[in-house]
Amino acid sequence: MDFLSYFLMDFVKQLQSPTLGFLIGGMVIAALGSQLQIPESIVKIIVFMLLTKIGLTGGIAIRNSNLTEMILPAAFSVAVGILIVFIARYTLAKLPKVKTVDAIATGGLFGAVSGSTMAASLTLLEEQKMSYEAWAAALYPFMDIPALVAAIVVANIYLNRKKRRTADEYLSKQESFSKQPVAAGDYPDRQDYPGNRQEYRKQKDSADNRVKIWPIVQESLQGPALSAMLLGIALGILTRPESVYESFYDPLFRGLLSVLMLVMGMEAWSRIGELRKVAQWYVVYSLVAPFVHGLIAFGLGLIAHYATGFSLGGVVILAVIAASSSDISGPPTLRAGIPSANPSAYIGASTAIGTPVAIGLCIPFFLGLAQAIGGG
Amino acid sequence: MDFLSYFLMDFVKQLQSPTLGFLIGGMVIAALGSQLQIPESIVKIIVFMLLTKIGLTGGIAIRNSNLTEMILPAAFSVAVGILIVFIARYTLAKLPKVKTVDAIATGGLFGAVSGSTMAASLTLLEEQKMSYEAWAAALYPFMDIPALVAAIVVANIYLNRKKRRTADEYLSKQESFSKQPVAAGDYPDRQDYPGNRQEYRKQKDSADNRVKIWPIVQESLQGPALSAMLLGIALGILTRPESVYESFYDPLFRGLLSVLMLVMGMEAWSRIGELRKVAQWYVVYSLVAPFVHGLIAFGLGLIAHYATGFSLGGVVILAVIAASSSDISGPPTLRAGIPSANPSAYIGASTAIGTPVAIGLCIPFFLGLAQAIGGG
Amino acid sequence: MDFLSYFLMDFVKQLQSPTLGFLIGGMVIAALGSQLQIPESIVKIIVFMLLTKIGLTGGIAIRNSNLTEMILPAAFSVAVGILIVFIARYTLAKLPKVKTVDAIATGGLFGAVSGSTMAASLTLLEEQKMSYEAWAAALYPFMDIPALVAAIVVANIYLNRKKRRTADEYLSKQESFSKQPVAAGDYPDRQDYPGNRQEYRKQKDSADNRVKIWPIVQESLQGPALSAMLLGIALGILTRPESVYESFYDPLFRGLLSVLMLVMGMEAWSRIGELRKVAQWYVVYSLVAPFVHGLIAFGLGLIAHYATGFSLGGVVILAVIAASSSDISGPPTLRAGIPSANPSAYIGASTAIGTPVAIGLCIPFFLGLAQAIGGG
Repeated sequence: MDFLSYFLMDFVKQLQSPTLGFLIGGMVIAALGSQLQIPESIVKIIVFMLLTKIGLTGGIAIRNSNLTEMILPAAFSVAVGILIVFIARYTLAKLPKVKTVDAIATGGLFGAVSGSTMAASLTLLEEQKMSYEAWAAALYPFMDIPALVAAIVVANIYLNRKKRRTADEYLSKQESFSKQPVAAGDYPDRQDYPGNRQEYRKQKDSADNRVKIWPIVQESLQGPALSAMLLGIALGILTRPESVYESFYDPLFRGLLSVLMLVMGMEAWSRIGELRKVAQWYVVYSLVAPFVHGLIAFGLGLIAHYATGFSLGGVVILAVIAASSSDISGPPTLRAGIPSANPSAYIGASTAIGTPVAIGLCIPFFLGLAQAIGGG
Repeated sequence: MDFLSYFLMDFVKQLQSPTLGFLIGGMVIAALGSQLQIPESIVKIIVFMLLTKIGLTGGIAIRNSNLTEMILPAAFSVAVGILIVFIARYTLAKLPKVKTVDAIATGGLFGAVSGSTMAASLTLLEEQKMSYEAWAAALYPFMDIPALVAAIVVANIYLNRKKRRTADEYLSKQESFSKQPVAAGDYPDRQDYPGNRQEYRKQKDSADNRVKIWPIVQESLQGPALSAMLLGIALGILTRPESVYESFYDPLFRGLLSVLMLVMGMEAWSRIGELRKVAQWYVVYSLVAPFVHGLIAFGLGLIAHYATGFSLGGVVILAVIAASSSDISGPPTLRAGIPSANPSAYIGASTAIGTPVAIGLCIPFFLGLAQAIGGG
Repeated sequence: MDFLSYFLMDFVKQLQSPTLGFLIGGMVIAALGSQLQIPESIVKIIVFMLLTKIGLTGGIAIRNSNLTEMILPAAFSVAVGILIVFIARYTLAKLPKVKTVDAIATGGLFGAVSGSTMAASLTLLEEQKMSYEAWAAALYPFMDIPALVAAIVVANIYLNRKKRRTADEYLSKQESFSKQPVAAGDYPDRQDYPGNRQEYRKQKDSADNRVKIWPIVQESLQGPALSAMLLGIALGILTRPESVYESFYDPLFRGLLSVLMLVMGMEAWSRIGELRKVAQWYVVYSLVAPFVHGLIAFGLGLIAHYATGFSLGGVVILAVIAASSSDISGPPTLRAGIPSANPSAYIGASTAIGTPVAIGLCIPFFLGLAQAIGGG
C-alpha cells in the first residue's frame, strides 16, 4: 500500500517534471495546430551540446574514479548496459506489431541510467545506515554510455539488414519484371529510400550474405550523436574541461533539454497513432523490465560481493542503476542516433512508467533484498 | 520641479539601459553600413525563448496566487489591459498619417506591464508605509498578457479586413478590365501579397460581408508568438517548471532580449523615416496615455476598495501597472505577433517616453491621490 | 632549470585547457571522419556574442579607468599592439613559404593580450611585494583591441593588393591571349575568385596605381567581426550594460568559445598540411617574439617611469601584456576578420608555444629585470 502511494506520487511528479511537461506540451500544441517551429540548426546545436555534456560528465567521472578498485563492478555495469539492449531486442521487439527500432530504442533508454533515481537510492541507503563505497555512484557512466552506444549500433545493424533485404527483393523483381516504384513507406527512414539501382547493387556486392558489423559500428561512432558524446568523454578524461563544464554545458543542460523535449513532443504527436495497437506491450515491458534488469545486476553484484568484498550497499546501487531508465541522457542521444525510432514509444515507456516503477517499487525491493541477505 | 528632475534622470537612465542601448546600437550600426547579421534561425529561437519565459513567469505567478481572494482586481486588470488596446485603436490610430498596425502595437505595449516600474512603486509604497496586499504584485500577468494577446488579435482582424477589401477591389477591377498587377507596397506585409486570383475568390466566398472574428483569433493563438507564450503559461500553471525556469529561461532572458533589441534596431533603422510626419502624435500619446490608463485603473481599483476592501496601496499598484508600458515582454511578442508594425514607433514611444513618464510622474501622482483619498 | 620546469608544466596545462582541448578535439574528430557539424548560423551567432563580449569588456574597462592618469602608458599600449602586427608582417611573413595572411594573423594574436598571463604576473608581483598602479591591469584593452583591428586591416590591405595585382595580370593576359581560366587556388579566399572581367576592370579603374587604404579600413570596420566588437566597446563606454554583461555575455563566453574552437579545429585539420614546410618558422617566431615584444614595451614603460613616475611594477605589467599572446579574444576575432588565414598556424603558435613562453619565461625575466633596475 505504501509502495503504491509512493508509485502514484512519483507518477504525478514525473508528469509535472519539465522533461515530460515540455514533451506533453509539444504534443498538445502540435495537436492544436500551432505554427511554432524550432529551426533545424537550433535542434542540431542543442543535440550537440546535450551529448557533449553527457560525454563530459561521464569522462570527468571516469577520470576521477579509481578504476583498479572498481574494475569488477564497472565491468558488470558495462555488461548489464549492453545486455539490456539485447533483452529488448529479443523480447519486446518480437511482440506482435511492435516496431523493432522502437523496441531497441526503448531497450537503450532502460539500459541507460537515471541520475535522480540513483540519487533517491543513495538517500535511502544513508537513511537506512547501509554503507556503500564512495565510488559506487561513479558506476553510472559505465552502464549508461554502453547501453546507448549499443542501442544505436544494434538499431543500425537491423536497419542495414532490412535495407539490404529490401534491396535484394527489389533487384530480383527488377530482373524479372519491368521498373516498379518502391513506396517510401517501406523504408524505416526517409534517407534510406533508394536513390537508384546502382547503389543497391553496390550494397549487394560489398556485403555478400550477411551485413558486415564493423563498418556499421564505425559509421555509428562517426555519426553526429556518438561522435559528440565520445568527444565529450575523451575531453573529460584527457583534459581539464571543468571550467567550461561548470559555466556552460552543465547549467544549460536542463533548459536545452526542455526545448528538445518540446521538439520531440511535436514530432511524437504525428506518430502517436502508431502506438494504438502496441501500447499494452510497452506497459507490460515497462512494469517488468526494471525488476528483471535489477535482478540481473543484483546477481552480478552479489558475485562481486563474495569475490572482492563489494559492499551490499554497492550491490543495491548497481541493481538500482540497472532498474532505472534514463529520462535525461537517453532521449537526445536516441533521437540523434536512431532518428527513425518513435519517441512517443520509448520516452513514454521510460518516463511515464519505468521511472516511477524504479523509484517507487524497485528501490525498496532491492534494499529489502540486500537487508535480508545481509541479515540486517 | 522634483518631478521633472526625477523624469529627466529616469529618461537618461532609460537611454543607458541595455534594452534601449542595444536598440539604438542596432540603429547606429545599420546607419553606418555594418554587415553584421543575426541569422534568422537565431532570431526565431530567441523569440521562442523570450515568449516561453514570459508565459512561464505569468503561469507560475498565477499558480502561486490565491485566485479567489484577488478575483475582482484580477478581472479589472484583464479588462484594463484589453481596453488600453482599444483606446489606442480608436484614438492614436485615427490621427493623421499614423499607421493603424503601429498604433495597435503601441497600445499593446502600453497595456503590457513594466516589471521595473511596478517594482519602483512597491519600493515607494514601503517607504511611505502604505500597506498593500502581498498578492498585488501578482496582478501584473493579468494585465500584461491580455493586452499583448488583444493587440495581436486586433491587428490581425484589421489586416484581414484590409486584405479582403483590397481583394474585393482587385476582383471587381479584374472583372471590368484586363489583368493589372498589384504593387506589393499596397499590402501591409510581404506575406499578404496575393499569390493568385483563386485564393482571393476563396477569401471572398468564405467571408461574406464581414470578416469572421473567431478564425482570426484562433489563427493568432496558433501563431509562433502566442503559442509559445500560451505554452509557457500552461506549463507554468500545470507543471513544476521552476528548475528549468531558474536555470535557463530566466537568467538568459535579458541577454537574449539584448540580441533581439539589436536586431530590432537594425530593422527599425530602415523604417525610421516613416515616423517623420507622425512622431509628434506618438509623443502626445506617450505623455497622455499613462495618466489616462492609470486613472481608469485607479477608478476600478476604488470600486474594489469600497466593494471588497482592496487596500489603497493595492489601488496604487493597479494604477501604476496600467500606467506603465512594457519594455521587456512587449517588444519580442509584438515583433513576432505583428511583424508588419514598425518597432521604431512602438518601442520608441514606450521606452523613451512612456516609461520615464510612468516612473517619474505617474507613480508620485497616484500615490498622492491615494493618500489624499485615504486622508493620510 | 626552474624556468624550464615552469615552462613544461605550463605547456602541459595549456594542452589540457578547454581552449586547446576543444581545438585538438575538433582536429581529431575531423581526422576520424566524424559527421558532426555545427550549423553555420550557430557559428555566426557565437562569433557575434564572443566579439560583443570582448568589446563590452574593453568598453567597460575604459569607462571605469581614469584616462588622464594613464594616458602615456595607454598610448604606449596602443602603439605596441599595432607595432607587433607590423613586426610580424615584415619578419615572419618574409620567411620562405610562410603565407602572408597567416603571418599577419599570428602577429595579431601575439599583439593581443592573454588575461590569464596578465593575472599570473599580478599574482607574482604581489608575492614579490612590488607595487603597481591599480589601473595598470586596465591597460590591456588598449593593446588587445588595436592589435586585432590592425591585423584585420593590414590583412585586408594585403589581400586587396594581391587581388588587384592578379586582376592586372589577368587583364593583360586577356588582352594578349584568348580567354584563359584562372584557378581558384590562386586566390587567398574563395570569395575573391573573379566572377567576371567587368568587376576586374572596375577594380582596376577605381584604384589606379596603389590600393586606397581608407576604403579598406572602413570596410574592415563594417565587417561582422569588427562591427560587433566596436558596438560592444561603444555600448560599454556609453551605456550601462553591466546587467546583461554579467548575466549573459560574460558567463557564456568560455563555453561558446569552446564550441568555436571545436569548429576551428575541424577547419584546421584540413589545412594542417600547409604547415609541414613552415612549422619551424612558427616555432622560432613563437619563442623569440614574446621577448622582443616584451622588451619594446619594457623600454617604453621605462620612459613613462622616468617621465611620469609610472611604477616599475606597472612597467613589468606593460611588458608582460606585450609578451603575452591571446588565446581567448584573438581566435574568434581573427577567424571572422581574416577568414582566409589558417587557424592551425596562428592558434598553434600562440597557444602551444607563445603562452607557455610568456608565462614560464617572460614573467620571471621581466620581473628580474625590473628588480635589477629598481635595485630591489
